[in-house]
Amino acid sequence: MTYKFMKRALDIAKKGRGQVSPNPLVGAVIVKNNSIIAEGYHEYYGGRHAELNALKNCNENLEDAVMYVTLEPCSHYGKTPPCAEAIVKSGIKQVVVAMKDPNPLVSGKGISILEENGIEVVSGVLEAEAKKLNEFFIKYISENRPFVIIKTAMTLDGKIATVSGDSKWITNKLSRAYVHNLRNQVSAILVGIGTVLNDDPFLTTRLPDGSGTDPHRIIVDSTAQIPLSANVLNIDSKAKTIIATTERADSSKLSSLEAKGAEIIITPNKTGKVDLTYLLDKLGEMKIDSLLIEGGGQLNFSAFSTNNVDKVLNFIAPKIIGGKNAITPVTGQGIEYINDAISLTEIDVRRFDDDILISGYVKKGR
Amino acid sequence: MTYKFMKRALDIAKKGRGQVSPNPLVGAVIVKNNSIIAEGYHEYYGGRHAELNALKNCNENLEDAVMYVTLEPCSHYGKTPPCAEAIVKSGIKQVVVAMKDPNPLVSGKGISILEENGIEVVSGVLEAEAKKLNEFFIKYISENRPFVIIKTAMTLDGKIATVSGDSKWITNKLSRAYVHNLRNQVSAILVGIGTVLNDDPFLTTRLPDGSGTDPHRIIVDSTAQIPLSANVLNIDSKAKTIIATTERADSSKLSSLEAKGAEIIITPNKTGKVDLTYLLDKLGEMKIDSLLIEGGGQLNFSAFSTNNVDKVLNFIAPKIIGGKNAITPVTGQGIEYINDAISLTEIDVRRFDDDILISGYVKKGR
Repeated sequence: MTYKFMKRALDIAKKGRGQVSPNPLVGAVIVKNNSIIAEGYHEYYGGRHAELNALKNCNENLEDAVMYVTLEPCSHYGKTPPCAEAIVKSGIKQVVVAMKDPNPLVSGKGISILEENGIEVVSGVLEAEAKKLNEFFIKYISENRPFVIIKTAMTLDGKIATVSGDSKWITNKLSRAYVHNLRNQVSAILVGIGTVLNDDPFLTTRLPDGSGTDPHRIIVDSTAQIPLSANVLNIDSKAKTIIATTERADSSKLSSLEAKGAEIIITPNKTGKVDLTYLLDKLGEMKIDSLLIEGGGQLNFSAFSTNNVDKVLNFIAPKIIGGKNAITPVTGQGIEYINDAISLTEIDVRRFDDDILISGYVKKGR
Repeated sequence: MTYKFMKRALDIAKKGRGQVSPNPLVGAVIVKNNSIIAEGYHEYYGGRHAELNALKNCNENLEDAVMYVTLEPCSHYGKTPPCAEAIVKSGIKQVVVAMKDPNPLVSGKGISILEENGIEVVSGVLEAEAKKLNEFFIKYISENRPFVIIKTAMTLDGKIATVSGDSKWITNKLSRAYVHNLRNQVSAILVGIGTVLNDDPFLTTRLPDGSGTDPHRIIVDSTAQIPLSANVLNIDSKAKTIIATTERADSSKLSSLEAKGAEIIITPNKTGKVDLTYLLDKLGEMKIDSLLIEGGGQLNFSAFSTNNVDKVLNFIAPKIIGGKNAITPVTGQGIEYINDAISLTEIDVRRFDDDILISGYVKKGR
C-alpha cells in the first residue's frame, strides 16, 4: 500500500509544474484506515507547502493517520513556517518520505525534528521517482546552477537541417507539441544567434489549449548581432529576453537592446565566444533552475565539451536527407576517439507516432 | 485456433533461414481434431517443400485434417513435383494459406488446383506476417533484383565515426551480434572501397557459437584500388568475393584479382562511379535475393538517391562525439528540402541494452 500512496503524492506534486520554480515540486497525502483522507501539493512559488495544504484540507483526528510526502518536510522558517513542526502539532504519528531534502544545509533536519517528537519516519520510498521529479531543483539547490537539457531534432541520418538549411519540419506535430510542454516546465530557453538570424523564432510556450508559461529567452550572441526587429525583442511576454554577450559587442547596440527591454549579461570572452560556464553561474544567481538549450551544433558542442549538460532529448524523425554538408546536432571540433565519447545513461525511448524520442543523462565524472 | 496454427507454421518456416535462398521460407502444419499431427518446413535450397515434408511426417487418415501453410502451394513441376497435387492426393479437404505466391507467373494457380479438386481454401490468414517473413523472396521473384537493406551504426548525434575516423566501437556487443545474425540471413553484403582501405574487414558471419553462413562479399571499387592483400581476398570462405568496378579499372589489376579467386562485375561508368542499379540487376541474375549494404555515407546516399533501398536498420548508441567534419550515415550531395526527404514507414524500435535499433521500410512511389 505504501507505494500506491506515495505514487499518488508524486502524481499530485506534478500539478505544480511550471509554477513553483526555483522551489521543488512536492505532493503530500494523508492516509487513515488505508484510505486517503486529504491531499495537498505545492501549488506556486511562495505558496503554502504541500504538507500544510494537506493538513489544511483535513478535519479528522490524525492520531492513526500516516502522511506520505515526496520530499522531507522543511525545518526552517522561510516564506512559510516549518512543515515539520506543523506535522508534530497535527498529531500524526507516522510519516513516509520519498527523499531527503537535497539542500546540504538542511538535509535530514526535518526528519530529525519529527523523530525527536516521537514520530516514526520511513524514508526512501520511491526515492528514484522523487529525484527524477525534482531533477531541476536538486541540481539548482546543490550547485546553484540550472539543470541543463539539450533538445535536438534530427532525421534518422543525423541531420538537423538539409544542405540548403531547410528544417521545417523535421519532426511531426506530436513531437513539437511535446517540446512546448517542455518549454512550459523550464525556467529558461537558450539559443545561439545563428538560430535567431536563420529562423527568427519567438521561443514562447504554445500549448495546444493556448495556455503556457513562457521561459526566459536567452540568446548567446558574442558580438550582439541580433537585429532590433527580432521577434524575441518584440513580443508580448512576461518572460525576459536576455542577451548573453561579450565585451566584443558594441556598447551603443547594447543600449538599444536594453531600450527594447532586453537584459544584457556580459561574460568573459572565451576565445571570442560567450563563456557558457560563467553564464550558467549568472543564471543560477538569477534563480533560473532549469535551462533548455535548443541550439545549433556549435553551441551544443560548446555545452557538452565544457561539461555543462545534464540531460539530452533527441527527437528522431524517420526520414533520410543525406548531405555531406548538412548540419548535425553536435558539431564543433569534435571528440577524437570513441572511448572518450560523452556517454549517456538511464536511456529512455518514447514514440510520438513515427517519431522517436531518445533521452538520457550525461554520465558525470568521466 | 486458425491464427495459432498459422503462427506455428510461420515459426517453423524460420528454421530455414540462411539455407533456402533464393527460394522462400515456408512452413506447414497439419491439424486434426484441433491438434497438430504433423509439421514440415522448407529446409534447404532444392529440398522438399514444406507441404511435402509435413505430409511425409504423417501416417494418419487426412479426410478431416486441415493444412496450414504460409505460402500458396506450388502448381508447377520444378525441382520437386507440385505440392497442390500432393495435397489433393493426401485426402485433405481444407487448406489455410497465409499468402498467395508472389511470383506473378504462378500466383493463384496452386489455389485453383486445390479448389478444382473440391478442397476448401482460406487465404490471407496472417498475411502481413507471411509477407514480412519472405520480404527477400517477394522482392526477388517479382523484380528479379535483391531486397536491399542499408545498415548503419551511429552515435546519438548522428556520426558513424569521430573526426579522426575512429569507429571502434560505436555500438555494443549485443548490437554487433545482431548484425552477424543479419549477415547469416542475407545472400550478399556490399561495402565501398573506402571501408576496405580503412578497416580491412573480413565481412564474414561470426555467430556467437562460431557457426554461420557467409554472404557473398561485394566491394564497390570503380578503379579497382583494392590491395591484393585485403582480407576479403585472402579468407577461407565458401562465399564469393565480387569486385564491382568500371572500365576505369586497370585490366591487369583485374586479372590479378581474378587470379586471387575474385569475380569481377564491370558496370557502366556513371560519372566515374559504379552504376548501382546495373549492379543490382546483375546480382539478381546471379540469384542473389538479398543484399546488406554496410557502406559509408557516400555509397549509402548513392543507393538512396537511385531509389535502390528497401529497408533501413540504424543502430544508435547513446554517445555524443560532436565534430563538424565527422561522417554521418548518409552524405553525398543531399536532398535540398525536408518535403523531398526519403520517408520510412513501418517504423520499429528495438533495444539492445542501451543501444537502440530503429528500422523502417522506404516508402515507394514518392
